[in-house]
Amino acid sequence: MSTYDTFTEDLKRIAALGSISGLLEWDEQVNLPPESADYRARQSSAMSELVHREATRSQVGEWLAELKEDTSLDLDQQLVVSEAGKEYDRLTKIPADFVSRKAELTSLAFHAWGKARADNDFASYAPYLERNLELAKEEASYLGRADDPYDYWIDRFDPGMDATSIQRIFKGLKDELVPLVRQILDSSIKANTDCMKDFPVDRQETFLREVTERLGFNYRRGRIDRSLHPFCSGNAFDTRMTTRFFKDNPLDSLFSSIHETGHGLYEQGLPHEHIGTALGEAAGMAVHESQSRLWENQVARSPEFWKFWEPVYRETFDQQLSGVSSHDFYLAVNSVALNPIRVDSDEVTYNLHILLRFELEKALFDGSLAVSDLPEEWNRLSEQIVGLRPRNDSEGVLQDVHWSGAAFGYFPSYCLGNLLAAQLWYALLEQVPSVPEEMAKGNFSPVLDWLRTNVHQHGRRRFALELSKAVTGQDLSHVSLIRYLRERYLPLYSS
Amino acid sequence: MSTYDTFTEDLKRIAALGSISGLLEWDEQVNLPPESADYRARQSSAMSELVHREATRSQVGEWLAELKEDTSLDLDQQLVVSEAGKEYDRLTKIPADFVSRKAELTSLAFHAWGKARADNDFASYAPYLERNLELAKEEASYLGRADDPYDYWIDRFDPGMDATSIQRIFKGLKDELVPLVRQILDSSIKANTDCMKDFPVDRQETFLREVTERLGFNYRRGRIDRSLHPFCSGNAFDTRMTTRFFKDNPLDSLFSSIHETGHGLYEQGLPHEHIGTALGEAAGMAVHESQSRLWENQVARSPEFWKFWEPVYRETFDQQLSGVSSHDFYLAVNSVALNPIRVDSDEVTYNLHILLRFELEKALFDGSLAVSDLPEEWNRLSEQIVGLRPRNDSEGVLQDVHWSGAAFGYFPSYCLGNLLAAQLWYALLEQVPSVPEEMAKGNFSPVLDWLRTNVHQHGRRRFALELSKAVTGQDLSHVSLIRYLRERYLPLYSS
Repeated sequence: MSTYDTFTEDLKRIAALGSISGLLEWDEQVNLPPESADYRARQSSAMSELVHREATRSQVGEWLAELKEDTSLDLDQQLVVSEAGKEYDRLTKIPADFVSRKAELTSLAFHAWGKARADNDFASYAPYLERNLELAKEEASYLGRADDPYDYWIDRFDPGMDATSIQRIFKGLKDELVPLVRQILDSSIKANTDCMKDFPVDRQETFLREVTERLGFNYRRGRIDRSLHPFCSGNAFDTRMTTRFFKDNPLDSLFSSIHETGHGLYEQGLPHEHIGTALGEAAGMAVHESQSRLWENQVARSPEFWKFWEPVYRETFDQQLSGVSSHDFYLAVNSVALNPIRVDSDEVTYNLHILLRFELEKALFDGSLAVSDLPEEWNRLSEQIVGLRPRNDSEGVLQDVHWSGAAFGYFPSYCLGNLLAAQLWYALLEQVPSVPEEMAKGNFSPVLDWLRTNVHQHGRRRFALELSKAVTGQDLSHVSLIRYLRERYLPLYSS
Repeated sequence: MSTYDTFTEDLKRIAALGSISGLLEWDEQVNLPPESADYRARQSSAMSELVHREATRSQVGEWLAELKEDTSLDLDQQLVVSEAGKEYDRLTKIPADFVSRKAELTSLAFHAWGKARADNDFASYAPYLERNLELAKEEASYLGRADDPYDYWIDRFDPGMDATSIQRIFKGLKDELVPLVRQILDSSIKANTDCMKDFPVDRQETFLREVTERLGFNYRRGRIDRSLHPFCSGNAFDTRMTTRFFKDNPLDSLFSSIHETGHGLYEQGLPHEHIGTALGEAAGMAVHESQSRLWENQVARSPEFWKFWEPVYRETFDQQLSGVSSHDFYLAVNSVALNPIRVDSDEVTYNLHILLRFELEKALFDGSLAVSDLPEEWNRLSEQIVGLRPRNDSEGVLQDVHWSGAAFGYFPSYCLGNLLAAQLWYALLEQVPSVPEEMAKGNFSPVLDWLRTNVHQHGRRRFALELSKAVTGQDLSHVSLIRYLRERYLPLYSS
């Protein structure tokens, strides 16, 4: 075997070990008996330590050194080597004692956050958050990024992106989105979701299974289970999604499942033979999110989607929907309302929540905002950007889990994913004009096939910016998302 | 930290890693999507390789060498060191290439066995079985047991036992059990299980959950799920049982669950702080099986058990049991009939199946029986010992999975467990005479408390033979089991 082949076999073996850590987490969310959490923490930490040790063996460094000089490698192979080298650097340059200190401190911070949110007591959490910010900066410094720690974190989630480019994109978005939200909210037409009550959970489950299967999720290599918060984990060989059910909010479980199906379809579309290398891994979080959003929003909130599914849905829930007109039902699917909570927000106002968080993260990292001033600044900016002021910190600055785990720079990916989804959507409609008509007949494979060809099969060959340019011919920007939101929502909310 | 403390911390860490392999297997049986098996095999093999590497580090050998000379260790600590040393020897003396060759060959043999059983074609499987026998002998030879390979295997499952001592015990059992079976089968009284039809699975599930919880299974640190074959895995921190459901055979799922609960209660009763060392591990398979059998048979087939549970059972299944008298129901719970299949046999005839397999294993290992002659010898001995001749090899020599995995010497543990269970049962009744009365009131904690004190809390301090002597004052023998079977079954089947 060539060094390259030996090396990639080792990458795949380490990925298989990493996937075991993933399974431990899945099982923790889905199956773990209530008092087994301590032992699971011990299993997970023993496992992470082993995977870390395997991935940082000096042998790996030797292979990398040799392969970086190997002029016979083609472009794909060079990508595999450079991406693996970047990860090896990260794992070896960050001291082991920092890793375990960070794990311990963020675990404490997570519990402090949970308590602070329950008690509406930001002050008790502030010292943890300050320390998390320091940890994030310290980690960046080990990678030689002491001068631009926020950019280091953004690049970790979305390679090639930085705060400056995001700032430019978000500026354009904000200028057009804020008035659009205002226009929709000012409409005298209001969606009414009161009809969505008392939907038996077993029937919700049957329906969403049928939908997600028809969208293309491969249940022969995947599952859907229940957990407190929906997520998708695993890889193409074994993709595990979760959802949750509310009797009085059936659209939550349905759209959550479709969202996770989007993530799952991406994972299942990555080239199986390359899983564990850059050619078989997702191209960053914005791209991942673009896949979940495209299915959740562009596809599943479309009139064509419901043209096909409404009769099935009505048959499943005939009593519940008996007095509801098609128009009112479709409006409920596309209801828009200000909500202080990001994860409960609709696709129009959701992006405002991200703009808010990006501004705050930037200010925390450049030192212009102290953690102690964060709640007030959150509330002030929330009023200005989102359009409402949280009633308290629990539904304001304390609402998200991310910072408690020192995960800064992650929020922008959600919004970048929304932008990319809209951009991909118009490229798809242009290249395959029959998509709406096919969807109306219940045929979603033209969508999936196009995503497989243009996104999934490329692994990390194209990160968000390159992908956008290569597939849509346009730079990543707000233009398509704004166009999409106008086209979808203005007709609905114009009297 | 002392060397002993450092060493046991490492044992516990390795046990936590081993428990991850266990979880992968549990997940494979309970959750794995149908086409994900290949990847699971890859994950499991990568994991086993890592655990093996961790457990055979030269550092472990150095600690062991030092601790074997350490005269300050108490008896418990000496046990931990000697048991760990035995395992280290096994792992280091067996060459790595043998381990992977065996894994590969037994995997092939397993598939060949499945096909041969389906096709009723022993000849196609015979070469695999021959090779498995050679593998078993080869493994024994690495541990210096080339002269008594069968004893090596028996000792692996039940330390301290060998073929000679089992032979002596089984001889006594056979002499009394064969005529007892004849006596019961000759009775004009026959159990009728025809009434056990059409029991809704969800209600079966509710009932067995209530039963197993009341027996003492801690669901805050455990679960029960469904799988093709019932099993119990995990450890005290997270105990995972499974069962299966048949609408027309509710006693199967109920007694399977109680059996697995017996295993689970044992695991949950091992000292948590010692898990990973000999003080927190099960004392061999016979002891493990004694725990499952005691709950399944001595407890759950008793009149006192059903005095408490029958009203609940009738309430749960009022329609199904409406025309069935208490006596007929209790007879159905304790039905006895010859069955060619071991796992479908009742507690009386079950042991005959083990006597048969023990004779055959001995003959295979001492060379007096060739694999090619095995089917005929199986049938001949089956007629003589069990009392019926299988109609074909699928329900004869091909019925069990064990040999296809080169697991020889395991079958005797099942019967030894039955003997020990009966012996423990009489010791319990003598020491805590109120047990039957308490069980009739639905109070099973006197049983569990006694097992905790006399069996569970001791880990591997007492293997089957010592345990029997220490707790019951008697050598392990057939006496109590025969007494128990006579006392339970003769009154029922005497007209």
